[in-house]
Amino acid sequence: MEKKRSRRRFLKQGAVLLSGAGMAQGAESQERAGEPWERVYGAGFRGYGQPSRFEQPVQRYVFRPYGDLAPGSGAALAPIERFEGIITPSSLHNERSHSGVPDIDPSAHRLLLHGLVARPLTFTVDALLSYPMTSRIHFIECSGNSNRALTPKPMQVPAGAMHGNIACSEWTGVPLAMLLEEAGLQPQAKWLLAEGADSAHMSRSIPIEKALDDALIALYQNGERLRPEQGYPVRLLLPGWEGNMSVKWLRRIKATDGPTHTKDETSKYTDLLPDGKALQFTYEMGVKSVITKPSSTMKLPRPGLYEISGIAWSGAGRIRGVEVTTDGGATWREAALYGEERPKALVRFRLPWEWKGAPAMLQSRATDEKGRVQPPRNEWLARYSPANGFHNNSIVTWSVDADGSVHHVYA
Amino acid sequence: MEKKRSRRRFLKQGAVLLSGAGMAQGAESQERAGEPWERVYGAGFRGYGQPSRFEQPVQRYVFRPYGDLAPGSGAALAPIERFEGIITPSSLHNERSHSGVPDIDPSAHRLLLHGLVARPLTFTVDALLSYPMTSRIHFIECSGNSNRALTPKPMQVPAGAMHGNIACSEWTGVPLAMLLEEAGLQPQAKWLLAEGADSAHMSRSIPIEKALDDALIALYQNGERLRPEQGYPVRLLLPGWEGNMSVKWLRRIKATDGPTHTKDETSKYTDLLPDGKALQFTYEMGVKSVITKPSSTMKLPRPGLYEISGIAWSGAGRIRGVEVTTDGGATWREAALYGEERPKALVRFRLPWEWKGAPAMLQSRATDEKGRVQPPRNEWLARYSPANGFHNNSIVTWSVDADGSVHHVYA
Repeated sequence: MEKKRSRRRFLKQGAVLLSGAGMAQGAESQERAGEPWERVYGAGFRGYGQPSRFEQPVQRYVFRPYGDLAPGSGAALAPIERFEGIITPSSLHNERSHSGVPDIDPSAHRLLLHGLVARPLTFTVDALLSYPMTSRIHFIECSGNSNRALTPKPMQVPAGAMHGNIACSEWTGVPLAMLLEEAGLQPQAKWLLAEGADSAHMSRSIPIEKALDDALIALYQNGERLRPEQGYPVRLLLPGWEGNMSVKWLRRIKATDGPTHTKDETSKYTDLLPDGKALQFTYEMGVKSVITKPSSTMKLPRPGLYEISGIAWSGAGRIRGVEVTTDGGATWREAALYGEERPKALVRFRLPWEWKGAPAMLQSRATDEKGRVQPPRNEWLARYSPANGFHNNSIVTWSVDADGSVHHVYA
Repeated sequence: MEKKRSRRRFLKQGAVLLSGAGMAQGAESQERAGEPWERVYGAGFRGYGQPSRFEQPVQRYVFRPYGDLAPGSGAALAPIERFEGIITPSSLHNERSHSGVPDIDPSAHRLLLHGLVARPLTFTVDALLSYPMTSRIHFIECSGNSNRALTPKPMQVPAGAMHGNIACSEWTGVPLAMLLEEAGLQPQAKWLLAEGADSAHMSRSIPIEKALDDALIALYQNGERLRPEQGYPVRLLLPGWEGNMSVKWLRRIKATDGPTHTKDETSKYTDLLPDGKALQFTYEMGVKSVITKPSSTMKLPRPGLYEISGIAWSGAGRIRGVEVTTDGGATWREAALYGEERPKALVRFRLPWEWKGAPAMLQSRATDEKGRVQPPRNEWLARYSPANGFHNNSIVTWSVDADGSVHHVYA
């Protein structure tokens, strides 16, 4: 469907040569010409494949605020400007770790389920693997994503180095509700404490309603077992909520009558307001989008037809639409969507654009099925203290100069 | 939806402890206990992640019929019995290569589009990357998949080592129809020749109807650029058709008035019949399924509740249903499906099963939206010469012995 529509839209714009294809000169000699790799026998099979050596520059953007003092504390952002579609390759999934990635032996790891339950239970990983599985495609976004777009002057870095603390995978695991049912939740159990097996014992409090709704005890990511950076051998997955609540390396769930107020939820993950107060437990990630192609630090080689492409998501459910402007908000057009049938998953939006060589201002604005609309930057800034770095879902602006260079601007 | 249904089905079977979870002994001491990895600061960030060292045994099954004489000729099959969901990790995608994997420099690679066209065109990879993109989830199955399930005696190897020449990815690329439109197909152009840039110049003939329908010039796989083994930097993708027709390392497409009868389509990829004749151009892959959990070489540790799980697909479109028998075909039950909304993509099927410790015979039988039903083994065998090794989509049988060991049997 999308294919035919976008082709028609694209060709409608009238160009015969869309995007710099060359007229073939002497097609018959090109037919015979052989590049060096066509003249030698190729490489043998590998048990576990890797990208081409020509793709080695495609890496996560690593931020370690404490440097070599704490090399595993910080975040690794996904190079979203290099991606297409909605599935994030597991090797490039965003990562936020508080005290490095533990090297967990799955045969020794245990998940303890205790507290206000009739039957405290211990699960080996093998036991969890034998439960009925559920698969779903969901995004995980760090609540601090896009805090690097809050500096006094707009950074001139690739889109992923500011907005790449987001990724989207097919997750498979056991519904948490099934394990809670088995343990027998007591009526006064209104919250859970979830704790990781990293040396920080990263932990968060979770309302029981979410646990009984769509929470998964995730064991697989994009078909294979979880990657170490994403919580191997077992993580919690709370679709649509702050990434840090999807506790990695999950070792313990305790049913409680109230929130535990762990160090991780009192020292951070609260949103500072202009009056000095703070919002606590702002779990759901807002409706958001970002144009990844073109985006900052890229350059359009020449005037012509381009496809504007990007990702959109909402912690509240499905994306209903994404509008795109190329004139700084004077006019907006609806983009074509891919993947919009899934709640709490990335959506790919695409729109053809003829760039005539004049300066342009590109923005995207997502709306979700609850009717929430991604806010303009100034509107979002006014809601919080300047010291707040969480839940920045405001509209992102890229300017295109007359020479085709793309810059990050505040608008 | 599926989650709640399967949970209800599972719990309905009446067991309190579903799958070997242990009653927690001394929960409070377990709460405090720390494994070694909880007491040391974890590993630092990596730009491009890899699986846990404990998952290193999960590798493709490599078959090199010519051994070290031709180390890149053969196939690498996906360990489907280790997967969950429907997305295959790109590092474990199945691979069939005729003369190894070429080491292609994307800046030098060209795609030539010529023959019966108004304007022969040459595309750089950068030019292709600037075209409008389409994303879709599709399987690729080698037409020789499951030929290792045609030996006189049933092999006792993991499911993937027989049936793993199949994988499913999210592919993104340019609709081939768009490039053909740009080049201006002449009315007498009824076929295409597609040729790879490997040293074998692997090539196939493609009817123009398929090219104009859902064929993609694929550039991305599961979000990142194609892997070398899957055709980096550009491959053809013909959804639902024999994998070898999705020509990898695509260097040339020539519009012709008839099939070219290349060496690759005369020396192989025809299906030998009992009367000595052969079927030519049997492009579409049949409706098929295989139970991956439990499967051959596995062992059920004890009687109890299990989930039967597997994959199903059809080259003709969507999967409509998968039935599962545990008594060798006497009775069948409908499995729950995940991913069945997508045509020509893997579907995950799941069914709860209480194994009481008696011998059992497990089979799955898929039906697609065209009403085609996966055939029994004997029915399939009767259609072909014993020398035929292509398009084996017959029903697979696993036996479960009283001791829980799972074997491959012919039934």
